[in-house]
Amino acid sequence: MAKGRTEIAELGEFGLIDRLTSKFQKSNSSTICGVGDDAAVIEASKDKAVVVSTDSMLEGVDFDLTYFPPKHLGYKVVTKGISDVVAMNAVPEQITLALGISSKISVEFLDDFYAGVEFACKEAGVDLVGGDTSASVTGFVVNITAVGRAKKSEISYRSGAKEHDLICLTGDLGASYMGLRLLERERYVLQGIDNPQPQFEGHEYLLERYLKPRARYDLIKSLRKEGIVPTSMIDVTDGLASEVLQICKSSKCGARIYLERIPLAQQTTRLAEEMNIDPVIAALNGGEDYELIFTVPLEKREEIIKLGCIDIIGHITAEGTGAYLVTPDGNDITLQAQGFTPKQ
Amino acid sequence: MAKGRTEIAELGEFGLIDRLTSKFQKSNSSTICGVGDDAAVIEASKDKAVVVSTDSMLEGVDFDLTYFPPKHLGYKVVTKGISDVVAMNAVPEQITLALGISSKISVEFLDDFYAGVEFACKEAGVDLVGGDTSASVTGFVVNITAVGRAKKSEISYRSGAKEHDLICLTGDLGASYMGLRLLERERYVLQGIDNPQPQFEGHEYLLERYLKPRARYDLIKSLRKEGIVPTSMIDVTDGLASEVLQICKSSKCGARIYLERIPLAQQTTRLAEEMNIDPVIAALNGGEDYELIFTVPLEKREEIIKLGCIDIIGHITAEGTGAYLVTPDGNDITLQAQGFTPKQ
Repeated sequence: MAKGRTEIAELGEFGLIDRLTSKFQKSNSSTICGVGDDAAVIEASKDKAVVVSTDSMLEGVDFDLTYFPPKHLGYKVVTKGISDVVAMNAVPEQITLALGISSKISVEFLDDFYAGVEFACKEAGVDLVGGDTSASVTGFVVNITAVGRAKKSEISYRSGAKEHDLICLTGDLGASYMGLRLLERERYVLQGIDNPQPQFEGHEYLLERYLKPRARYDLIKSLRKEGIVPTSMIDVTDGLASEVLQICKSSKCGARIYLERIPLAQQTTRLAEEMNIDPVIAALNGGEDYELIFTVPLEKREEIIKLGCIDIIGHITAEGTGAYLVTPDGNDITLQAQGFTPKQ
Repeated sequence: MAKGRTEIAELGEFGLIDRLTSKFQKSNSSTICGVGDDAAVIEASKDKAVVVSTDSMLEGVDFDLTYFPPKHLGYKVVTKGISDVVAMNAVPEQITLALGISSKISVEFLDDFYAGVEFACKEAGVDLVGGDTSASVTGFVVNITAVGRAKKSEISYRSGAKEHDLICLTGDLGASYMGLRLLERERYVLQGIDNPQPQFEGHEYLLERYLKPRARYDLIKSLRKEGIVPTSMIDVTDGLASEVLQICKSSKCGARIYLERIPLAQQTTRLAEEMNIDPVIAALNGGEDYELIFTVPLEKREEIIKLGCIDIIGHITAEGTGAYLVTPDGNDITLQAQGFTPKQ
């Protein structure tokens, strides 16, 4: 090429997306929200919107078929897709799947994969409405598009957090990352052994969180019942640090997260200690938890506590104050997101 | 695996999709049309629908970067996505892109790719509203989801063709396939030569049709202006034969296509003869023309002719009569679609 060559790692994922999409101008009045949130928001009628999100999962990057049962993979793909719709405070209703199928994939593999898709769809009340099947010369590639609906007034963007808002979190973090580390460890230890017997006892929760995570559409229903609309919301795919920074960037604010309030499951802490990993790092940078981080005004505190199973882990601060992790001894550690580098 | 192994080629693409999706049940009343048409149809309001379609393009299968300029690839991806929405007689309004990026891809490559996406979006009046960027260990992978809108009463499914309906076609067929064959020939002839100078003079139309095809959204606007709603419609991605058979299957009917009425461009016929290919085979099985095949009642004949640039290539026959290509000397040749086999 005559032009210079810039590596993608120099820009990072978000820098890259900004660079590529900044020139695009809007042509349609039905486009309410485009690039830059969990999902796009499109006008359906005067007061209603359709929310659309798209995600890919690539063999060798997002999953390894040596330890990912096809049924679990089907389930997880649905979770990944609908989680983005849920993170807009919309109810997911439809998905489409586009598959790239390599020659090593059999019909029986796809039967199992679709059984997982069907199970997840039924559980979430979502319809599979379309698809595309292509040959792939490389690995198994799955793309999911999820569609959901909400009243326009109910949608939670990343950009609505205000100073003093509470930062809330569903579930616990870091378990999915530790599940992956466990699978990688067992594969490494058992390589070359005939009929390997991996040791998974006592780690079942971690494996489930990695292999078969559930999207938190239950929260959306609870919030609607209580009439609470989060001022901002995002799902945890890249880790707590990255997601909080996304909210800060979009909402033009700072944040303080209290380290001792970050919920960790016992199995997460136990395996992390065994493997000499700081479990908080797993929570901050591990990702793939598919939990929801959302903000609500301070006065909603009692209502949030009443919902149950939600932790208030910090609060939003003024613009320019920065985003920090506050340790129990009162130190402020700057929150940092992990980078993005295409693999070799 | 303990279970037997069935190769995907044994079922074929459509057999595979039927097998995988037949068990799924509908959960949402907003799902008007699911798997089995060009795009899914979702209720937006009492009389309006949102149409959603998803497609993947994989390096090494759907395109070869040695002769696909990134800008053209960006343009073609948009065409591929919105063409499915157009084939439902809906106006495309939004797209999302999900990219799998391998380490050989530079930021400059992506700049060019997105310049092509932007050009196509502007031309079609479509907004890019979202995306996803992943690392890929293999090749460059692009998934596009396209969203469009229509009144429910305006949507053309594949299933509405009736006996005696006219089969209509926009543009000409086979040029895209001949463009690909030309590119492959020049690559083969010039391999190992420094500074190769491929011979493309006189074939510009074929290259444009393969590298930069345009979706026929112009037809949708013309049809609306005249108040014509096709009884069925499909876009030409797999070749005329496959598409007509799709309509016959969905509409439970037969079809007769008249060989001498299939429009072929001069450049298509000329190169086909030079390469000892029957140009009609290129039209029947080549695909990637992104033209529209649609049916209208017999009494709409004059109105269709008035629209201009549309050929009436045959008509729909009763169920069980079969789908045939009729030669000028009156022979009936059974229409056959090409198979689908994942590449090695």
